[in-house]
Order: sequence, then C-alpha cells, then structure tokens
Amino acid sequence: MNEVNLKPNERIDDLQLKGLKIIQNPKWFCFGMDAVLLANYCDIKPNSTVVDLGTGTGIIPLIIWGKNKVKKIYGIEIQQEVAEMAQRTVKMNKIVEYIEILNIDLRNALETLGVNKYDVVTSNPPYKIVGAGKINPEDKKAISRHEIMCTLEDVIRVASRLLKHNGRFFLVHRPDRIVDIMCLLRKYKLEPKAIRFVHPKVGKKPNLVLIKSIKAAKPELKFQDPLYVYNDDGTYTDEIYEIYGMEK
Amino acid sequence: MNEVNLKPNERIDDLQLKGLKIIQNPKWFCFGMDAVLLANYCDIKPNSTVVDLGTGTGIIPLIIWGKNKVKKIYGIEIQQEVAEMAQRTVKMNKIVEYIEILNIDLRNALETLGVNKYDVVTSNPPYKIVGAGKINPEDKKAISRHEIMCTLEDVIRVASRLLKHNGRFFLVHRPDRIVDIMCLLRKYKLEPKAIRFVHPKVGKKPNLVLIKSIKAAKPELKFQDPLYVYNDDGTYTDEIYEIYGMEK
Repeated sequence: MNEVNLKPNERIDDLQLKGLKIIQNPKWFCFGMDAVLLANYCDIKPNSTVVDLGTGTGIIPLIIWGKNKVKKIYGIEIQQEVAEMAQRTVKMNKIVEYIEILNIDLRNALETLGVNKYDVVTSNPPYKIVGAGKINPEDKKAISRHEIMCTLEDVIRVASRLLKHNGRFFLVHRPDRIVDIMCLLRKYKLEPKAIRFVHPKVGKKPNLVLIKSIKAAKPELKFQDPLYVYNDDGTYTDEIYEIYGMEK
Repeated sequence: MNEVNLKPNERIDDLQLKGLKIIQNPKWFCFGMDAVLLANYCDIKPNSTVVDLGTGTGIIPLIIWGKNKVKKIYGIEIQQEVAEMAQRTVKMNKIVEYIEILNIDLRNALETLGVNKYDVVTSNPPYKIVGAGKINPEDKKAISRHEIMCTLEDVIRVASRLLKHNGRFFLVHRPDRIVDIMCLLRKYKLEPKAIRFVHPKVGKKPNLVLIKSIKAAKPELKFQDPLYVYNDDGTYTDEIYEIYGMEK
C-alpha cells in the first residue's frame, strides 16, 4: 500500500490535507492540537523560508507546506530517532525538495542555518519547566514536554537570530507562561504583534496561547477573538472542524 | 436630603453598597466599569492598609471599604479639583477615619506615604500612551485617559515601593498593553500571580484585563475564567449583576 518501511510501534496517519500522511510512534509523542493550531495560525507569504524549532514528527512543516506556497522549511529535531522518523515522513510524501529535517540541537542551529536569513520561525516547544524531580533524559515524551534539552529562552533567542529584520515568529505555549514569554520576546527584539487565546470551551480559562511576533517591530499588540475547541455538548466547534479539514 | 454642597455640574450617585454615595462631575470623568471590576477583583485581608493610585472620584476606595474590613485606604489624586470632590464624597459618607484622599502627584507619593509599608496597592491608571498629538493639560478627561501626568512605569514603580514584602498589587488595564505590563511588573519585582480577562461578550476579544501581582513572589501565574459583560441579547450577565449588586 505504501513504500515506506515502518518500524515497530509506528503507524501512518492521514492529515486530510493534500494527501499528506505522517508517521508516528505512539510510544514516543504524537502531535497534538497545539501543533495543528499553530501551523494554521501562521500567516506566511509566498516563497517564504521557514524554520520549525523542535519539529518532532514534522507535523508543523507538513501542515505549513500543505497550506502555503513556501520555498523551503527546515525542521530542527534534537532526538535522532524522532528526526529520522520525520525524514521518512518527508520522503514518503515526496516533498524532500521543500522540507528538510535536521537532526541538530536547536541551540546550535545558527551554525548550520546561519543568521538573519529566514522569513518565518515557528515553535511548539516543551511547555514545562524542569522542576526538582529527576527526569530520564532517554524519555522521548519527557523531552517533548519538559525543558530538558532547551529552555524557552533558548527557543526565543535562536528564533530571533535566525529571522530577518521584520521576520515573523509564531509560538504556541501555555497561558501560565505568558509573563516569561512576553519578557523574553521583548528581550530578544521579537515584538508581540498578535495574540490569540485558545479556550477548551466558552466560560473556561484558556489552556493554550498563540502569539505572533515580528523582529524589530514597534510595540502594538492586537488581541484576537478567542478560539473555542468544544461546544457545550462536547462536540468540536465549527472553527476546529474547519482547521482540521474534517467533515461535520 | 444631604448635607453636602454640590458645585456646578456635580451630581450624587448611589453605589447600592452599604448606603455609599459618590459625587461626580460628568464634565470631567465619571467612573467606569473598569474601576468597579477592579475594586471587586481585589481580595483584601482584614485590617489591611491600601493605597489607590490615581483615585479620581474615589470610587475604588469606596467600594473596597464597602466590601472589606480595611484599616485605612489612601486615595492619591493629582488633580486638585477632582481630589477635593473625592474628599467631599468621603465626608458625605462619614468615613473620613477610613479613607483619606491625598492631592499629590503619585510620583512623589513615597515622600508622603513612606516605603515598604502597605498591604495592598490598587490602580486604574490612564490607559493610553501619549502620542504625537498635543493634549491640553487642563483637560481632566484627557488626564484620566492618557499617560500625561504619569506613565504605566511610574504607577508600577511606585506601587512596588509602597508595598510590603508579599504585598499585593491589583491593576486593571487594556489587554493591548500586556507586554508592557508584564515586563514592567517583573522589572519592579511585582510577580503576576493571577490574571483575568474581561470580554464584552462570548466570542469577542477581551477589552480589559485584571491582574493580581505579589511583591517578591515566585513566578507562578494562574489564569482565571473569563468574565463576560453582556449576554448575546444585550443584557448584563449574572456576574455583572452580582458585582454591581443590582436586582435583575
């Protein structure tokens, strides 16, 4: 049915977008709604060059490719086996000329990718600060969720250096980190220009935040209407159906 | 009916709270929902000392007095005629032992009030940055709305200096200023601990934000459920009725 060799535990999912498929290993970390919302939140000009920091399965590059006319997207992933799986996804979709997965530490990404060069940087980074408890550095889920291999400051600093003047940085994160996010964005000259909170439903506090920043722009933040995920009856809202390209 | 001498254009409004009344001059600046929401947002321990920066009509001290057992509330107001009107409101309500209106520049408030002394500081400051256009400094509405007599940084710096270790700062502001707010709060060691966005209605972006910060606290921000002002049919929501103490 498909030409790709799957490894143990791997499965292929259909993204319902231009025939794109993705390989995932549920034992590691499957992409979540946050990545899908971020990829859809990005407004990307034709012919842009994009870098996705901490790309995991490659979900964000795939959706961005599917929804925009991009020149090139680099997906940076530190975990060797995860990066290798994402590379097989790109090959399976026959879009190697558009998406390149790089198995490097994002903290060293500038050496490979250069500085002040890219139109867009995206990131769905680990959300959780590493606390006192020990986390197994071999644990792929932990690396995807906790700031083990990189901190929020690493992500923002590298994003800023990669971007051209007026380049755009799109970030998804937890609302309870917005003080850190705002202070770090401004520290690294990525001025927040638009913000959208994602609420599980009407009346509930947000559990995700989408932020668009522009390098070296003047301060002027635009709030956007909230995005609700579920209706009161537990079904997805129309906007979520639209984002996922699902039939109601 | 009342013993107070009203000046031209002044009127008296009933706050529907422990018999409190307030003098206002509609030619200057009448208190808005933002002040009422802020005063209700504050959680204040019994016997607290409170300073309200830019108190205007004195609305915030009045509501805080009406809803809490406070020791003393100082309302700071730079505009002489506005401060004098607020003083008459306090006298009319016979609560001069609890509320004192000081006609001073908040930037000099530390000289009068001292430092590291207060349990709570509140502020509903001017929201708008002064742009290129000239604003008449005699214009009381402009002074209440634009950062003519004080900037956001002045308010936050003074709030931090006034407060005890672990003292609380409650601020209401426009959401589009949250980058400035977050960065300045952290700069002056007022760590944001809780945040609540106020939306005109479900599905619409917020137009106010309420923030509780604690001096010298560790970072840990708690998002609160959104507050909606209007129902879809244009009536006030139950929560607004409750805050205003209105009968439905």
